[in-house]
Amino acid sequence: MKGLATPWETLSELTAAGTKSAIIDFLDLLGADESARAISRLSEEGRHQLFSRLGPEEAASLIEGFSDTQAADIVENMPLEQAAAILDELPSDQLADVLAEMQDGASESILASMEKEGAAEARMLMTYAPDCAGGLMISEFLAFRAEDTIRDVLKDLQENQQKYNSYNVQYFYVVDSGGRLTGVMRMHNLLFYSRETQLGDIMITSPLSLPDTASLNELKNFFDEHKLFGVPVVDGDRRLVGVVLPSAVEEEFNKQKTKAFLRLSGIIGGEEFRTMPLMARSGRRLSWLSMNIVLNIIAASVIALYQDTLAAAITLAVFLPMVSDMSGCSGNQAVAVSMRELALGLVKPGEIVWVVLKEARVGIINGVVLGILLGLVAFLWQKNVWLGLVVGGALAANTLVSVMLGGALPLLLKRLKMDPALVSSPLLTTVTDMCGFFFVLSFAAAVLPKLT
Amino acid sequence: MKGLATPWETLSELTAAGTKSAIIDFLDLLGADESARAISRLSEEGRHQLFSRLGPEEAASLIEGFSDTQAADIVENMPLEQAAAILDELPSDQLADVLAEMQDGASESILASMEKEGAAEARMLMTYAPDCAGGLMISEFLAFRAEDTIRDVLKDLQENQQKYNSYNVQYFYVVDSGGRLTGVMRMHNLLFYSRETQLGDIMITSPLSLPDTASLNELKNFFDEHKLFGVPVVDGDRRLVGVVLPSAVEEEFNKQKTKAFLRLSGIIGGEEFRTMPLMARSGRRLSWLSMNIVLNIIAASVIALYQDTLAAAITLAVFLPMVSDMSGCSGNQAVAVSMRELALGLVKPGEIVWVVLKEARVGIINGVVLGILLGLVAFLWQKNVWLGLVVGGALAANTLVSVMLGGALPLLLKRLKMDPALVSSPLLTTVTDMCGFFFVLSFAAAVLPKLT
Repeated sequence: MKGLATPWETLSELTAAGTKSAIIDFLDLLGADESARAISRLSEEGRHQLFSRLGPEEAASLIEGFSDTQAADIVENMPLEQAAAILDELPSDQLADVLAEMQDGASESILASMEKEGAAEARMLMTYAPDCAGGLMISEFLAFRAEDTIRDVLKDLQENQQKYNSYNVQYFYVVDSGGRLTGVMRMHNLLFYSRETQLGDIMITSPLSLPDTASLNELKNFFDEHKLFGVPVVDGDRRLVGVVLPSAVEEEFNKQKTKAFLRLSGIIGGEEFRTMPLMARSGRRLSWLSMNIVLNIIAASVIALYQDTLAAAITLAVFLPMVSDMSGCSGNQAVAVSMRELALGLVKPGEIVWVVLKEARVGIINGVVLGILLGLVAFLWQKNVWLGLVVGGALAANTLVSVMLGGALPLLLKRLKMDPALVSSPLLTTVTDMCGFFFVLSFAAAVLPKLT
Repeated sequence: MKGLATPWETLSELTAAGTKSAIIDFLDLLGADESARAISRLSEEGRHQLFSRLGPEEAASLIEGFSDTQAADIVENMPLEQAAAILDELPSDQLADVLAEMQDGASESILASMEKEGAAEARMLMTYAPDCAGGLMISEFLAFRAEDTIRDVLKDLQENQQKYNSYNVQYFYVVDSGGRLTGVMRMHNLLFYSRETQLGDIMITSPLSLPDTASLNELKNFFDEHKLFGVPVVDGDRRLVGVVLPSAVEEEFNKQKTKAFLRLSGIIGGEEFRTMPLMARSGRRLSWLSMNIVLNIIAASVIALYQDTLAAAITLAVFLPMVSDMSGCSGNQAVAVSMRELALGLVKPGEIVWVVLKEARVGIINGVVLGILLGLVAFLWQKNVWLGLVVGGALAANTLVSVMLGGALPLLLKRLKMDPALVSSPLLTTVTDMCGFFFVLSFAAAVLPKLT
């Protein structure tokens, strides 16, 4: 045998020949991250066998540690019954997230095979956008009636101790006969009153709450303002439907940042893992690249218009990609600052003029500095002042254009309800390429006799 | 007057002429995001006046809603006494974060002017890396002794109700005379026992905990595995020093993602906001761009070597930037997938060969498809088969090179303890530019008579 066995080789052997507890012990030993890696490296067949051996409960607790895309990917390819049995064991909010990552048909047939109660809850959660309060809330909370006494609450707590273990019982809520939120209490306040006290007499009335349609930013603002450990969520009729925890809000921001980063880098249509099928990976990357190739052809066509100029002063060809690349870099810096300021609410999509003016000042300074640098390089190389002026001037002008455009694009795209992360960079590159080529070649054409 | 007054104009007027409560009402009306925006748009002088009028407590609750960089930026420019008085009001973990964003000298002199207790706590927290358990924990937790009775606990809770309001009192901890963690209890379990019961008899012994040096990923794994609402943190002597909440872990991941996104886009040395001084913004952007210009010059020098080929077949100039741009896009997709897989632990820095092989297959498919596309465009434009072959072949070859390199770079940089977010993209672009130019021009040189 060459070298040590990899964790997935060992896992594969254990699946084939070990006991269930040996498999579980081995996965425990690996820890969450390493288990996810080992499982992702198994063949589809091997994965199927592993989850069959583990049983639904153990499989679900493994899957809880995976990203939603990975979990959906694994579950989608399982036999229906196995998939449904595993998903039955997931907490309601994660269940909805995983189902949302699947193809519509796949999630529908799995839901149809699941237990009625869990499926109904998941369907309810899936009616909400995943990044609003309704999509982020958990259904695991405690609610009592105003006429219940502390004794009633204690009885319920003791009877359901096992079930409530995974609940956030920092607070519990008081609802009326229609399920409408009327009060809240901190659990430890129960300690200070006699057991005959009715909750209605001691609860905090008109508690803070958010509607199920509240956006991610509203949730973020809520937790920034109120240092609470959860917020009750009510529907249009003020019925209590769930609780959002601050960690769920932060986690959703994390997800959105990851997706924005991936789209910005040209990974579209969901996450890509290298364990996914080759054709799926190639195809999705290609769909984005093909759009880019069209934009590239448009940009480069500027060069075709100036072929004679370029042929007459061939040294310019060295500087064309440099001017366009450098301006692209400058523009991307401005895009990043705008996206960050938009996310923090420090700039509004309507403030394009303010941003452009702020960027213009940076663009002039940086354009002049970079233009002088590149102009000097051109001059020293060819000992031709005019070449230096053309190249440096073009870079300076194009830097100014690209930072203004880069700063404005995310705001503009936001106003047009388009996705800045997906569209900003290709659009910026196309325009800065075109302008860069145009500046270099038209400046050159104007002083062509001096260049040759 | 033209149009409506902006929020910062109104704020500025209120600062000058309104009552303190009018200012507070107005900021409440604006909400957290809008307040942050309005305050960021005030002049430094205006900001100083505003915070003076508000007093430290109100100023601190405003600053709590800001990002650490913004908060540090604002506080750093205040008179020392005012800064210290405001920071005295911040919760310990945020205080440490804000101080960490300042220049060493500034934070030291502010700490020296602060209240002894708070300053000592902040200094203690600042000895930890901001992304380990020690740096993320809060000092606001409840700890009792094993010999304390439930009655003692209740007395303490009632006496300190005000102070404990902001505490996460889902759990409380039991420590021995040396402050070492010996047990944990869920608050609501207090309800089930007589008031004379000693905690030692009912607590859960040997509770889960993490060392203060635990990394962010260890914390993440911990909360993935254990659905708890906080984890106690102990120092080298097992003394209880703080509690980490799951939302703090998610928040730190968010911060790191933001920083990686900014570095990836060429915003280095901390966040940039457009309300910062012009020279600081220009200077920091330039420092990154100047490194890039050097890399660009190196890449473009390949073109200089082939000037004669290019002069003989000037249409190639149109395709040079297209081949290098397109390959850059393909390579960046691979970089993004590698960075994501590294973050999730699905790939280890040592698995470069595995990644390169996985990428090679995508690179061959995508290279062939894109090469055929671009080759066709070249052929149709100039009606020259050889031009199509040169251009398409170069793009195919360079796509293969760039996806393999893009996939491998983040792993390699991680092994070399360098920052993939900062270095991957410039390095990738340089190499794919060089190779792209080389492929186009060397292929062309080989069949030059056919091209002209």
